[in-house]
Amino acid sequence: MLTKAELQRLRSLRDKRQREALGLFVIEGEKVVRELLEAGFRFTGLYATGAWQPPKPLPPALPITTVTSSEMERVSHFPTPSNVLAVGRIVREPVHPAELGRGLTLALDGVQDPGNVGTLLRIADWFALDRVVLSPDCADLFHQKVINASMGSFARVRTHSADLADTLAHVPRGVPILGCELEGENVHVVPALADAILVIGSEGRGLSPAVAARVTRRITIPRYGQAESLNAAIAAGIVCAHLRFTSARPAAPVS
Amino acid sequence: MLTKAELQRLRSLRDKRQREALGLFVIEGEKVVRELLEAGFRFTGLYATGAWQPPKPLPPALPITTVTSSEMERVSHFPTPSNVLAVGRIVREPVHPAELGRGLTLALDGVQDPGNVGTLLRIADWFALDRVVLSPDCADLFHQKVINASMGSFARVRTHSADLADTLAHVPRGVPILGCELEGENVHVVPALADAILVIGSEGRGLSPAVAARVTRRITIPRYGQAESLNAAIAAGIVCAHLRFTSARPAAPVS
Repeated sequence: MLTKAELQRLRSLRDKRQREALGLFVIEGEKVVRELLEAGFRFTGLYATGAWQPPKPLPPALPITTVTSSEMERVSHFPTPSNVLAVGRIVREPVHPAELGRGLTLALDGVQDPGNVGTLLRIADWFALDRVVLSPDCADLFHQKVINASMGSFARVRTHSADLADTLAHVPRGVPILGCELEGENVHVVPALADAILVIGSEGRGLSPAVAARVTRRITIPRYGQAESLNAAIAAGIVCAHLRFTSARPAAPVS
Repeated sequence: MLTKAELQRLRSLRDKRQREALGLFVIEGEKVVRELLEAGFRFTGLYATGAWQPPKPLPPALPITTVTSSEMERVSHFPTPSNVLAVGRIVREPVHPAELGRGLTLALDGVQDPGNVGTLLRIADWFALDRVVLSPDCADLFHQKVINASMGSFARVRTHSADLADTLAHVPRGVPILGCELEGENVHVVPALADAILVIGSEGRGLSPAVAARVTRRITIPRYGQAESLNAAIAAGIVCAHLRFTSARPAAPVS
């Protein structure tokens, strides 16, 4: 049972400005909430109907409020509410350019499709990239569609927000900044790189001019047919697979 | 100006059963219609408001009907109609198993997300695969979202519909049937294959048992982190990039 104040507060989180003002995001759905709980994500609170089947074990300190179906209907952002709604803190971590000198970084320059951003987080997780840096004009990391598409990787990948052109201008000298473009080195023959930054541009426009100016190695995925381009996440997947395969790092054992 | 009968016929195409009965599909939006026209797709008819900017040159035999904005509102499938609506014929070509013995085939086994199916067509186009075969439980090829996500590749890639398990049971002996799975040969060391079939399973369940039983080479994209899986289209992109790179075929010149 919710108090009237709690109900109003949860309802208010339907509004993006209100979420930003309170620094909170909302996520709904049994599958996505289970994925994030299993990945160890710390929600500030969970609201669930009696029909919700919680994954076990639940974090001991997690406040869970039982709500009725009609209360859920009133707070849900969806026309068909699910059995669980979770609230978490919005944290947009900055990044120091020096950090980008170590390991593999995926930098997203204006990737606006939330499904693409989520898929890119999943790629970063699969290939154990060290971090993902998002420019402010990317789809919002805390958008339900981003988190859904990440399939739990949202909770496992280290993410940062940063002005990319400025950050890339100050990374340590010699760290290769790879840009995926239509003309460049064939990705398949790029030699092993233990430390590198891979920049992926927006779906429609590619890299922004200020970011493209910071790219030190233009790489390309050879084209054999007639498609004008590859989807941003597909391109990132192909380059990341190559970077990890050529690095000395052993693959994770099959579980 | 539309006659009452034309208006009713176009409106009726909002209904999937009606589209199937008439063997027609509908696509809306200036971008997607331009992409398909530029790729040489032959629509049976176009309906456009005065605000539509047609790409040049238009096919000479294409019937174009000018409609008013309010007529477009009444026939559009969208809450916010665009300036152009195109109608095309639904053609689901069967495939003879012997054809799968030549070149590279992408076979989709129950890929249900329309965005993924469209992205897979785009990948097939980029890497000049010889054909894509879709099982009947894939997302419908003629769905607006599939065609949108294909970015024009819908009109360029050869597609077929087929019962995959049955078709794969009758392909010529010795043609490798690759299945993307969590355990198998490392994709990066799979040798060059001029003729091969790559089977991609559904997002949630992977390959269906009847199709998995036909796979002759299980291949895997090594995992370094903790994501449970890669998106189906990402996996296909990585494998196709490898297959094309190791084949002797030269890449298309940069245009």
